[in-house]
Amino acid sequence: MSDPYWPDVECIPYRGPDCEDALAYHYYDADHILLGQSMRDHLRVAVCYWHSLCWPGDDVFGDGTFARPWHGGGAPMELAERKLAVAFELFSKLDVPFFTFHDRDLAPEGKSHVETRTQLDHMLELAEVEMARTGVGLLWGTANLFGHPRYAAGAATNPDPEVFAVAAHQVLHALEATHRLGGANYVLWGGREGYDTLLNTDMRRELDQLGRFMQLVVEHKHRIGFQGTLLIEPKPMEPTKHQYDFDSAAVHAFLAQNGLEEEIKLNIEVNHATLAGHSFQHEIEYAIANDLFGSVDLNRGDPQLGWDTDQFPCDVGEATLALHAILRAGGLGSGGFNFDAKLRRQSIAPDDLLHAHIGGIDTLARGLRSAVCLLEDGVLEGCTLERYRGWEAQLGHDILSGALDLARLADLVEQQGLDPQPVSGRQEQIENQISRYLR
Amino acid sequence: MSDPYWPDVECIPYRGPDCEDALAYHYYDADHILLGQSMRDHLRVAVCYWHSLCWPGDDVFGDGTFARPWHGGGAPMELAERKLAVAFELFSKLDVPFFTFHDRDLAPEGKSHVETRTQLDHMLELAEVEMARTGVGLLWGTANLFGHPRYAAGAATNPDPEVFAVAAHQVLHALEATHRLGGANYVLWGGREGYDTLLNTDMRRELDQLGRFMQLVVEHKHRIGFQGTLLIEPKPMEPTKHQYDFDSAAVHAFLAQNGLEEEIKLNIEVNHATLAGHSFQHEIEYAIANDLFGSVDLNRGDPQLGWDTDQFPCDVGEATLALHAILRAGGLGSGGFNFDAKLRRQSIAPDDLLHAHIGGIDTLARGLRSAVCLLEDGVLEGCTLERYRGWEAQLGHDILSGALDLARLADLVEQQGLDPQPVSGRQEQIENQISRYLR
Amino acid sequence: MSDPYWPDVECIPYRGPDCEDALAYHYYDADHILLGQSMRDHLRVAVCYWHSLCWPGDDVFGDGTFARPWHGGGAPMELAERKLAVAFELFSKLDVPFFTFHDRDLAPEGKSHVETRTQLDHMLELAEVEMARTGVGLLWGTANLFGHPRYAAGAATNPDPEVFAVAAHQVLHALEATHRLGGANYVLWGGREGYDTLLNTDMRRELDQLGRFMQLVVEHKHRIGFQGTLLIEPKPMEPTKHQYDFDSAAVHAFLAQNGLEEEIKLNIEVNHATLAGHSFQHEIEYAIANDLFGSVDLNRGDPQLGWDTDQFPCDVGEATLALHAILRAGGLGSGGFNFDAKLRRQSIAPDDLLHAHIGGIDTLARGLRSAVCLLEDGVLEGCTLERYRGWEAQLGHDILSGALDLARLADLVEQQGLDPQPVSGRQEQIENQISRYLR
Amino acid sequence: MSDPYWPDVECIPYRGPDCEDALAYHYYDADHILLGQSMRDHLRVAVCYWHSLCWPGDDVFGDGTFARPWHGGGAPMELAERKLAVAFELFSKLDVPFFTFHDRDLAPEGKSHVETRTQLDHMLELAEVEMARTGVGLLWGTANLFGHPRYAAGAATNPDPEVFAVAAHQVLHALEATHRLGGANYVLWGGREGYDTLLNTDMRRELDQLGRFMQLVVEHKHRIGFQGTLLIEPKPMEPTKHQYDFDSAAVHAFLAQNGLEEEIKLNIEVNHATLAGHSFQHEIEYAIANDLFGSVDLNRGDPQLGWDTDQFPCDVGEATLALHAILRAGGLGSGGFNFDAKLRRQSIAPDDLLHAHIGGIDTLARGLRSAVCLLEDGVLEGCTLERYRGWEAQLGHDILSGALDLARLADLVEQQGLDPQPVSGRQEQIENQISRYLR
Repeated sequence: MSDPYWPDVECIPYRGPDCEDALAYHYYDADHILLGQSMRDHLRVAVCYWHSLCWPGDDVFGDGTFARPWHGGGAPMELAERKLAVAFELFSKLDVPFFTFHDRDLAPEGKSHVETRTQLDHMLELAEVEMARTGVGLLWGTANLFGHPRYAAGAATNPDPEVFAVAAHQVLHALEATHRLGGANYVLWGGREGYDTLLNTDMRRELDQLGRFMQLVVEHKHRIGFQGTLLIEPKPMEPTKHQYDFDSAAVHAFLAQNGLEEEIKLNIEVNHATLAGHSFQHEIEYAIANDLFGSVDLNRGDPQLGWDTDQFPCDVGEATLALHAILRAGGLGSGGFNFDAKLRRQSIAPDDLLHAHIGGIDTLARGLRSAVCLLEDGVLEGCTLERYRGWEAQLGHDILSGALDLARLADLVEQQGLDPQPVSGRQEQIENQISRYLR
Repeated sequence: MSDPYWPDVECIPYRGPDCEDALAYHYYDADHILLGQSMRDHLRVAVCYWHSLCWPGDDVFGDGTFARPWHGGGAPMELAERKLAVAFELFSKLDVPFFTFHDRDLAPEGKSHVETRTQLDHMLELAEVEMARTGVGLLWGTANLFGHPRYAAGAATNPDPEVFAVAAHQVLHALEATHRLGGANYVLWGGREGYDTLLNTDMRRELDQLGRFMQLVVEHKHRIGFQGTLLIEPKPMEPTKHQYDFDSAAVHAFLAQNGLEEEIKLNIEVNHATLAGHSFQHEIEYAIANDLFGSVDLNRGDPQLGWDTDQFPCDVGEATLALHAILRAGGLGSGGFNFDAKLRRQSIAPDDLLHAHIGGIDTLARGLRSAVCLLEDGVLEGCTLERYRGWEAQLGHDILSGALDLARLADLVEQQGLDPQPVSGRQEQIENQISRYLR
Repeated sequence: MSDPYWPDVECIPYRGPDCEDALAYHYYDADHILLGQSMRDHLRVAVCYWHSLCWPGDDVFGDGTFARPWHGGGAPMELAERKLAVAFELFSKLDVPFFTFHDRDLAPEGKSHVETRTQLDHMLELAEVEMARTGVGLLWGTANLFGHPRYAAGAATNPDPEVFAVAAHQVLHALEATHRLGGANYVLWGGREGYDTLLNTDMRRELDQLGRFMQLVVEHKHRIGFQGTLLIEPKPMEPTKHQYDFDSAAVHAFLAQNGLEEEIKLNIEVNHATLAGHSFQHEIEYAIANDLFGSVDLNRGDPQLGWDTDQFPCDVGEATLALHAILRAGGLGSGGFNFDAKLRRQSIAPDDLLHAHIGGIDTLARGLRSAVCLLEDGVLEGCTLERYRGWEAQLGHDILSGALDLARLADLVEQQGLDPQPVSGRQEQIENQISRYLR
Repeated sequence: MSDPYWPDVECIPYRGPDCEDALAYHYYDADHILLGQSMRDHLRVAVCYWHSLCWPGDDVFGDGTFARPWHGGGAPMELAERKLAVAFELFSKLDVPFFTFHDRDLAPEGKSHVETRTQLDHMLELAEVEMARTGVGLLWGTANLFGHPRYAAGAATNPDPEVFAVAAHQVLHALEATHRLGGANYVLWGGREGYDTLLNTDMRRELDQLGRFMQLVVEHKHRIGFQGTLLIEPKPMEPTKHQYDFDSAAVHAFLAQNGLEEEIKLNIEVNHATLAGHSFQHEIEYAIANDLFGSVDLNRGDPQLGWDTDQFPCDVGEATLALHAILRAGGLGSGGFNFDAKLRRQSIAPDDLLHAHIGGIDTLARGLRSAVCLLEDGVLEGCTLERYRGWEAQLGHDILSGALDLARLADLVEQQGLDPQPVSGRQEQIENQISRYLR
């Protein structure tokens, strides 16, 4: 067994907001009960293998800066084993209940499909041991269908059906790996399911390919008895010019067209929401309103930048509003809050990885605490009920029930000389109220 | 009858690209036959009453600059009549086959619902006379559900059901007016169907209200025997923070949820596409791929500006690609190309209105000519067929037909050791080819 | 004297964060001393006449919703007097030390330049009385050079020198009015000093016109003995496609070219910063770093919208960082925090105007409290000093002093085999620290 | 000598617009004379070593797709030699007069500063031979101060002065290499001179460091007798959150503050202009208006994407307007048009590199032809002269000359009762005119 990467750090403790020790939770008190449930169970926090363990700190203009010991030269499987050890050191020192992974994060691609599969199997065995040892569970697994050059023109939506087939092979094994590790969900993450240019693209054909792919996965899930939720993660663009899974509404239309609304839910990412021109809260509320909410990737973007900066969250207000909506809708279910977040490229000290997650988890915990107070005081429910109360009266019922057709409604307007007077929307006053809950 | 607004201008003639007279079409030759149809019938151009006749040239920081004689002081109905005369002078001098209108463009709101209706009736009578006299038809009508303060919080999605009712009254009459004038379509344009803040908004409730509204309109359409197409015009934002009809995909999801895909199509606007983070071509292709294409508003935005600048189009390449897709899909059907475009606020000379439309229509005509050449030479079909040809072979068929499930597909990949090699997407080469068609 | 607009509201009191009364300050305790100065003097809050009293709640798609009694029909000067009374009722009930105004906010344009001037004089007299009565001072005045159609193509940058002259006349009187009312600053706000299209624009010529205009104002300021600071307010666009005063750096370049860096400072607006692609903090820091900081308009935009939404601020973190930078640089000087903010169009209740300002001022007050704590604990200073400490040693001094030229520096690198090792930038850790100061 | 990479391709010929051979110029006829100069000399086209020869086709989510023979395993210097041979094969087959390079494109970094320098020297020798053999010249050289992890926090603006020193060493040698190869310019490209967060940044200090760096380079340029122009290339962001060289105006302010306006000009990139919120034409016109224009990188972005897509240009209108401005200002001088453009990642066929450059150069050639026609017909000059003609009369002169101060100007306005009437800006009409020149 390799040496610990953070030899001087024990499991990060909860110390309260006034503690000056940076390597402690100031708001996340895992066992603290709110609304009858522990913070741990409310938030179902996951650390992601991908950005936190695999990404070397490179960007489009520069080489990796992190110089992790498990990134250097060496036999790929030895490095993979070393990475696994550090991964579970991280998960358990952060005391989070879950992790998430891509197949390739765990084990490198081999020289043949069989070798690839064998390598993955070996790493899954080791992962099972670590999971049993640490008690860390799997929130979701997924397949990396974007890194290899064969996927440059998409996986399921590739113009070459052999690429579809290879992707299918890969997803089958990633799904079965997720099942084996007891994953609560499986994510269908379409990193390149879109186009670079419409000039060489047959959109109808590609959407049909994508629909077929999803159906194959749904069938297989049922065949193997995987009880977790299938999730699609909307993203509008990057690395492609345009992804079919642009936002929640686009995925909704796709699912409806393929009869999959009951089978697949959404994994909403903050940074993908904002790249698509929506607020994070919008995407959450849209998913909930359409019974499509699944899980969350909480990494944020930068309001001035037009690409996926995948930063650790620090906006308590944003977290509060999301949690408020989720709690009101009954909680996360099988979902969780994953940090698919990258350190800044200058954050090269080993403990930066700890600080980043502590900050993200504390942001979530503050959001949870504020959301619970808002709910307990009925702040937003109150405003909303009052605002729409007219719809609870006769006219509202008659409209929605279909008792009135357009002609009768128009007659009624003339007969009664209806002249509805606007009422204040109270936006600023509500913003002030919420602001006072953010402490 | 009032004096002409452009006394020195006759009907704008076609003169060819080398003519130096600015008050002539240089590319739009209405009777010229391409692919067996006249340019007039291919393009079905419409001038819009709203921006061209009603808008005074104001903006959020300044007063109107246009000082149209029919905008000044005077009895509202007298001004409306004067405006109508100039409108048909414009339509006929531009020699376009269609116009489009909002109810309030034609006739002002009265002091009661009855007066409003009576005033609209009177103007419709006059419009019928003008249409008969000039031969100009109606591409579509719509209702202005955004200007009056009562609609500040939405029309169908208003928290007050009385506002829903008043909107229903208005749409009934706008739809019947459109029917009376032989409109080819009716547009359901949701100028404020969205929210300013989610904090006081019940999204599920509002989406249900919107769904009910659409169903009422669909029923009424059938009751009165209106044969035109119902259209929804997606727009992401402005004046609201967020509209439910954000883009084609969002409307698609909404229609699917309400079982309305067969009843309502899309009116795509260039500027709304780009505000939603899509190319115009994307929105056209998405609509066609999902059998939702209806009609087009060709006004463009400014690539550096984040609001609806509604400029007259001048990008021949953009027009070409849109027309290529539309022609390939069988043409406009009952749709057309409407110029829902605003003059720049400094363009205060009467003939600026003529120049702007001439430029827009010529842009469209150049696009049509280029698109026809591209189609005749099979440029883009060729690339695309070649690129996806693998899907016409056995493996492709077996995947799409469902003959292979995920497990068998994965087995096949291992057994055959599939290792598909990427093929160039040829984007730059295709861009070069198309560029040479734009002359 | 007219009736009060808020008859049931007394001066808004400070009540502390736990008070549930919405019509109270929860954080702004005007007389509370921090770092030896009262909150009132630290923040120098101003309410703006323009958006709060003059704007009717219209937008580009709809009519005004506010129906203020002083907006309705009536003799313009009577309405202006009524508006003045309500304005000072607002300022004094909010207990703010300052207001800001455009010339046209106070008095309407008359039928001649002389009448316009006379009307302004009359209103200034009344304003002087109100200021004396209430103790409210003037943070700055400015001239409305954007509303009248004559300014559609700019004021100083207009292609017609007569428009330049009329603008000069207007600014002279607005500057003298500001002087008369004891204004602490005068803002040169170039609402339309830019272009709609470069195709008809001579940029060099227009920049020269703008330079000349500024010099004229500077000379006149000195002639009349106005001791306040002249400010330019950067804004990138809207209503024009592009303004010359795009951002702080563009104004900086302009001032340098015209030798005006010592004469004119910057009025930074949050929403203008973000429209220009910068964070608010960036614009503040740039201005301070270049000795150009003057004052602040604290109205924010919406991160998903591309126009000037001018919302009341509610982001305590943003306020904290701005105040931290300003305090570190010595405070506001003659500047202040102005709310050039618009109510949402649905916020039609009279008390919405109070709530909006209370929320904005409380946001500022929380920011001030947090910034003071950050400063007292030396949080950011500490990080920064440590990070650059190498520059305090020999090599750093030799580089900056010019002791080493490029060749000697290159030699030294080879001779010493310099191989500097990166150090963590600690971004996430610092973000966590700051986050804990935001309560 | 290695085998040719495009064995079947000869030097790309000019064949005219109707030629169907894609591997030919359709508009770029190098020796064709326009306005007394050949197209070659007007356009001064350069191919860039960096993206075209060095970039492997990776992106932030995927590995390189290009599999160039000179990218594979092998001794670094052998690969560098092989790359050089292909580079000059490309330059000469494209028949362009220039190339551009970063130091690291030509030769890899060695294990010591001395080895790095020696390796660069060796490659320079080979480059000199190739340049002599092919007649291809050097438009500019630059130093890669962004790829190595040591530059993660900037080069000149690094918090560690040793990094500044190493960067100085590198620039000295890159500048001398450029001098040795007869470069027409040297570019100071600040890939990471900015910040990731302001929280750990001392902006004033960093700007001073940057100013000192530029002065060192200017001094050294004069010392070694380099006659080329020094250029700064503005870029707003990416990979950093914010670069100090944000746009032309920001660089302008920086140069003015450091007294360097006479020493350093601008290298404008299309994609950097649009990322900064400007049109390309704006940045060109700003640079010309302020006597800062130097050279151009013609690679474009995607209007829907918020990062540097660096695509080959295909917008003839954009090229026309830029060339119109440049020709009117006297031409490129020592500058040129460089294609700092990346193939799309799917464009993996060897000849894609040829097609991409052919398309870009033809776009430029069409722009040149159109711009010359516009100039010869005086289209835009005519509009502009007419529009500002008032400034040539007495009032205009008196204003600009300073003959009138603010008070006298204001008096004159009242005495003469000036009431200037707006004149149409004619934007649509001018757009139509220009459109007809784009064939």
